[in-house]
Amino acid sequence: PPPSPNPALIQFYTISRIALKSGGDAATDSLTSNAHTGKSDATERLTEIYQAIYDGAESFLRAEYTICTYFIISFGLLVFFLVSWGNSSSDGWGWKEGGFTALSFVLGGLTSMVSGYIGMKVATYSNVRTTISAQKNGWTACFNTAFRAGAVMGFMLCGLGMLVLYITLTVMKSSFDEVNELGMHTQWTTLCDCITGYGLGGSCIAMFGRVGGGIYTKAADVGADLVGKVVHGIPEDDPRNPATIADNVGDNVGDVAGMGSDLFGSFAEATCAALVIGAPSLSVTNDWNAILFPVVVSAVGIFVCLACSFIATDIMPVKKETDVEMALKTQLISTTVLMIPVVYGAAALVLPASFSLAGVNGDVDVKPWMAWICVVVGVTGGLIIGLITEYYTSHSYAPVREVADACRSGAAINIISGVALGYKSAVIPVIILSVVIYISFSLCDLYGVALAAIGMLSNLATGLTIDVYGPVCDNAGGIAEMAELNPEVREKTDALDAAGNTTAAIGKGFAIGSAALVSLALFGAFVIRIQQASLADEGTVFAEGVNMLKPLTFSFLVVGGMIPFWFAAFTMKSVGLAAMEMVEEVKRQFDEKPHLLDPNATERPDYDACIQISTKASLREMIAPGAMVMLTPLLTGTFFGVYAVAGLLVGALVASVQLAISMSNSGGAWDNAKKYIERASPESELKGKGSDVHKAAVVGDTVGDPFKDTSGPALNIVMKLMAVLSLVFANYFYAINSGRGLFNIAI
Amino acid sequence: PPPSPNPALIQFYTISRIALKSGGDAATDSLTSNAHTGKSDATERLTEIYQAIYDGAESFLRAEYTICTYFIISFGLLVFFLVSWGNSSSDGWGWKEGGFTALSFVLGGLTSMVSGYIGMKVATYSNVRTTISAQKNGWTACFNTAFRAGAVMGFMLCGLGMLVLYITLTVMKSSFDEVNELGMHTQWTTLCDCITGYGLGGSCIAMFGRVGGGIYTKAADVGADLVGKVVHGIPEDDPRNPATIADNVGDNVGDVAGMGSDLFGSFAEATCAALVIGAPSLSVTNDWNAILFPVVVSAVGIFVCLACSFIATDIMPVKKETDVEMALKTQLISTTVLMIPVVYGAAALVLPASFSLAGVNGDVDVKPWMAWICVVVGVTGGLIIGLITEYYTSHSYAPVREVADACRSGAAINIISGVALGYKSAVIPVIILSVVIYISFSLCDLYGVALAAIGMLSNLATGLTIDVYGPVCDNAGGIAEMAELNPEVREKTDALDAAGNTTAAIGKGFAIGSAALVSLALFGAFVIRIQQASLADEGTVFAEGVNMLKPLTFSFLVVGGMIPFWFAAFTMKSVGLAAMEMVEEVKRQFDEKPHLLDPNATERPDYDACIQISTKASLREMIAPGAMVMLTPLLTGTFFGVYAVAGLLVGALVASVQLAISMSNSGGAWDNAKKYIERASPESELKGKGSDVHKAAVVGDTVGDPFKDTSGPALNIVMKLMAVLSLVFANYFYAINSGRGLFNIAI
Repeated sequence: PPPSPNPALIQFYTISRIALKSGGDAATDSLTSNAHTGKSDATERLTEIYQAIYDGAESFLRAEYTICTYFIISFGLLVFFLVSWGNSSSDGWGWKEGGFTALSFVLGGLTSMVSGYIGMKVATYSNVRTTISAQKNGWTACFNTAFRAGAVMGFMLCGLGMLVLYITLTVMKSSFDEVNELGMHTQWTTLCDCITGYGLGGSCIAMFGRVGGGIYTKAADVGADLVGKVVHGIPEDDPRNPATIADNVGDNVGDVAGMGSDLFGSFAEATCAALVIGAPSLSVTNDWNAILFPVVVSAVGIFVCLACSFIATDIMPVKKETDVEMALKTQLISTTVLMIPVVYGAAALVLPASFSLAGVNGDVDVKPWMAWICVVVGVTGGLIIGLITEYYTSHSYAPVREVADACRSGAAINIISGVALGYKSAVIPVIILSVVIYISFSLCDLYGVALAAIGMLSNLATGLTIDVYGPVCDNAGGIAEMAELNPEVREKTDALDAAGNTTAAIGKGFAIGSAALVSLALFGAFVIRIQQASLADEGTVFAEGVNMLKPLTFSFLVVGGMIPFWFAAFTMKSVGLAAMEMVEEVKRQFDEKPHLLDPNATERPDYDACIQISTKASLREMIAPGAMVMLTPLLTGTFFGVYAVAGLLVGALVASVQLAISMSNSGGAWDNAKKYIERASPESELKGKGSDVHKAAVVGDTVGDPFKDTSGPALNIVMKLMAVLSLVFANYFYAINSGRGLFNIAI
Repeated sequence: PPPSPNPALIQFYTISRIALKSGGDAATDSLTSNAHTGKSDATERLTEIYQAIYDGAESFLRAEYTICTYFIISFGLLVFFLVSWGNSSSDGWGWKEGGFTALSFVLGGLTSMVSGYIGMKVATYSNVRTTISAQKNGWTACFNTAFRAGAVMGFMLCGLGMLVLYITLTVMKSSFDEVNELGMHTQWTTLCDCITGYGLGGSCIAMFGRVGGGIYTKAADVGADLVGKVVHGIPEDDPRNPATIADNVGDNVGDVAGMGSDLFGSFAEATCAALVIGAPSLSVTNDWNAILFPVVVSAVGIFVCLACSFIATDIMPVKKETDVEMALKTQLISTTVLMIPVVYGAAALVLPASFSLAGVNGDVDVKPWMAWICVVVGVTGGLIIGLITEYYTSHSYAPVREVADACRSGAAINIISGVALGYKSAVIPVIILSVVIYISFSLCDLYGVALAAIGMLSNLATGLTIDVYGPVCDNAGGIAEMAELNPEVREKTDALDAAGNTTAAIGKGFAIGSAALVSLALFGAFVIRIQQASLADEGTVFAEGVNMLKPLTFSFLVVGGMIPFWFAAFTMKSVGLAAMEMVEEVKRQFDEKPHLLDPNATERPDYDACIQISTKASLREMIAPGAMVMLTPLLTGTFFGVYAVAGLLVGALVASVQLAISMSNSGGAWDNAKKYIERASPESELKGKGSDVHKAAVVGDTVGDPFKDTSGPALNIVMKLMAVLSLVFANYFYAINSGRGLFNIAI
């Protein structure tokens, strides 16, 4: 039976029992009685802020998903017609293949939207409750609230994704149950081909969610930072800063909903890649469960994550500040370790004792232990990449401290050091990744690569829990500041947030690594499908593999390498422009009503104007990069054919991996270097908060915002999306002049 | 007959006639009598400054070249033994191949050092004379002085490179003149194989020159900027700034000597690549001149550049400020246009009416017009890439103005915009490049790609002229400032320099584009050589081309993509660290002797201390990145074999192209955005010099310094060097387990 999203519901219930009632504010109960507004009803303020954030997030997602729905319908029709045409046979167009692919596409897209939406709901619901817990209770309660909020999202997303996929497969199987004279199911391969639409749908929405949300959150964040810290000297989350609500909304729509869609996309694509590569060989065994092995690994992963989550909330609860980071790290490590024996059992149980896999480099005799090794190198490789990422982005280690030190010479040297750190931080992860690729590829051909990707994503529920935990704590802190609660509350949420930042970096390592593996597996699946189509035609396309030294392939290899840079340029420029608009708007508000700046002002600034700017900018700016990523492989395949697509995909993969790692880590390092400096005493060499050193660090942090939260993570999607799109349209590409494209030029 | 360096000598003679005598200083002859030192003898000050710059440059190059000499000897021995062993036959080790390859290597290295040294000499010699011309004479004279200085370098380097190559080929030919029973020269192919050492030698020294010089110049420049503009508010070239002489020395050793070595390396490698690919097929025609066709194209290019140089100095001399940019651009365009018919003549004259070329994708029947087309797409592609580069880096166009506009929102948005601009600026150049690759590769296989590279470098003499012209004007301005001459002199040299910056950007486009083509050609030559070695062995290595979808190849493809990022991290971090040391030293000097800051101070700061810091830092820091680039392919080939090397080279090529273009253009754009803001009036939105907007722009400019002058251009060398090194050691790699490496692991 497929895992139900029950674990998520239990966690959600626990959170919902926290009453929305403030424990009082600084004026009534505090040790440091610094309240100045004279208001005593903190509950009212908390509710007001919570409502503003919730409404902003809700209205943005509504607008975003409206666009996404139009997109799903129109692109779904395109998928339907092109795939149907591409699967034409003597019986006419392949309506069945086209229809089921389009259906999977729509389901993938809808599931992705639902995941993002639920995540946002839970996060906004839990933010304020985390604030209240931090105010009333000890470390255990407030950590657990935020952690459970993350867990709701993690388990909900994984459970939902799996459930929909399982149901879709099961329902569709009844239409693909033809049996030949030997009693073999001949159409299971076609079924798995159609299911790739699910990955494409998930990935397309992930692209819009990540880019739209990323631009939203960073436009608001950068704008708030610039105005708050640089121009007027008021803190980022000060209620007088008009961009502050938009900033908090951004955390929910970008860091939670966007990331949820992104990781759902990874999960869906990895599973589809493994299904589509494994199906032709495994359907020979006539064993449906064996085909489902990739789904089983993910399902098992959910239970492992659930089991381990009790370590954090119950077995070793957080008692003090220093426990937080350890609790989160224990989650990641324990799930990884526990996965190893569990997956061995699953492989031995589900897979046949031996089967012949038709790989891109000939047939391989696969045994369960080989599939197990692939999953294991994936999950451990992911953990190592994650820990390296942590080393380069946490201020507990030398690299970030060097960046902090560089701030003493000004903003420019800080930027140079941060960029250098990002570039350097790619070295070991890339080597690990290449080892994982080599081992899994050698053992089980591309099926192994797909399994390694699934392995790397098998503790996704935990990864997501931690990823969502961060923004929830961040928001809780923001709410505390805006509601002018006792500063102790803010300190508590900041400590929770800091630990979350570090462990979120580990999660990013998993995400980037798995994206590279998924892309390679999807690219391989694309090549295999073209090979098969050509073989059926008595042609020789890709018969000898993909030769780089063909003029057309090499030309597009170079072009492919450019796509991630172009994409990053698009998204960064969008953040820059939107942030500039935001700064102008805030300046306008203060110029028109200078009394808003007065610390005792009762009139609130126009938060809505800032929310509108972020919303409009992100919806406007998410179209171009998204379209670029989707149209490039589609047009390349249509006009130049499959040799060009092969070059394009490999070039994009190679460049994306490096750029994604570097940008994420540069951004993370700048952020934490700034935090490190903020903690320094004014007497130390780093001078502490408010000093010139700190100002230099703020410049780095601001530059890093789009690096780490807009462009960097979205690059994961670039490579996966281009690959899955090519796979879905593979037969269509091949149908045009036998894969030579409309131009039909020399290869 | 090979072209002699005579054009260079004539130009040099013209410059040398300018007497080293100031036309007076601000105190004695000026309209704006603002001199305050009371000294009247400007000649003495000029000589003093000239001497200090000259001595600094001389002592740095001496130190650098000492290290390079040790390197050449030791690495030359390595080449000798490994190549000899790799060419072992039944008669024992291939001492002849090893010896001649090592000899070519040494000659290439020495020629590169001589080129750099002469360039530096000429530049330092001409700087002060340009200052004097600017002081005494009109625009024509002072432009011509700087332009001729560049021309000396341009023609000297091209002439010398060609001369040494021609003599080496001619002399070595006498040892490879074996004739078989049919009267065919059977050893010309081996001769051309050995000559690849020349490219390797040139490229190795280029690596050290570019990296060492780049770190030197940018450590000094960034240090001087930070201290001068940010910390103490004195201008960059103010004589009170202790880092100022080091900054001027840096222009000569980095921008002139380093770049000279770099472009010599490109020239040598492009020629070697074409020779080695063409020789096996052309030696069948038994026509030595036909083999020399690549050399002929370069030789013809020198004469074309010489002819066109008179347009700038005599036919359409510069009469006013606005003429300068047009004069330089006319040079580039006129040489490109003139090359087209001239190369057609050369091809028709030298190449046989038709010959069968053994390419990596089978035999191609090459006719002279096909070779001509390859050269033409190269030279025109280079020009287009150059003009696009100009569009993205000149403040006459929208992109840089947008970056300047972003400075209004602070340094962070400036950085974000600049990085985005750099990434975006790669789009069209990469597409042009891929078109050039496709056309030339399709027409004449890899021989065509090599010819396209030679085409792109055929107006190298002009490109170098313009590249050297810039630093000479920059230095002339610095000298004028330090000698406290009339500000009008500085304004004149600044105008000359500004035009030079723009056109230097065009030259960079040529350099990056040609580097990519050269690397591809060299990679192809590597594959061909392995194919031949394997075929002789009755093996099948690379028999079907280079399949990307082999586990080992793909793993190293990803690793290769990481190398350029790692390299950039190394060099940027070095600049950051050295600049920090520089800032500390300057702070120390001012702290110890605060009276140095007094505008009327007669005591000079300790310039030497700063020169020492730059020298030590650059010599120390150039080793690691250089070693990394050289050892990576060498160790990969030794341990993992040729399938791994193939992946490595392609990955490095793809990533280097993007990163080199982006970094160079981001840097150029920041520089010019700053200049654009400096020219704005205080009433305008950009506020002009000294404003907060300007300060934000300075941060970008400083970050851009290592981007555009250290890491960016050095990335050209990374891809070429890795490829040429693999080619030189190809037989050695193949000799280890038939190309499977010492580990002999599964492909």
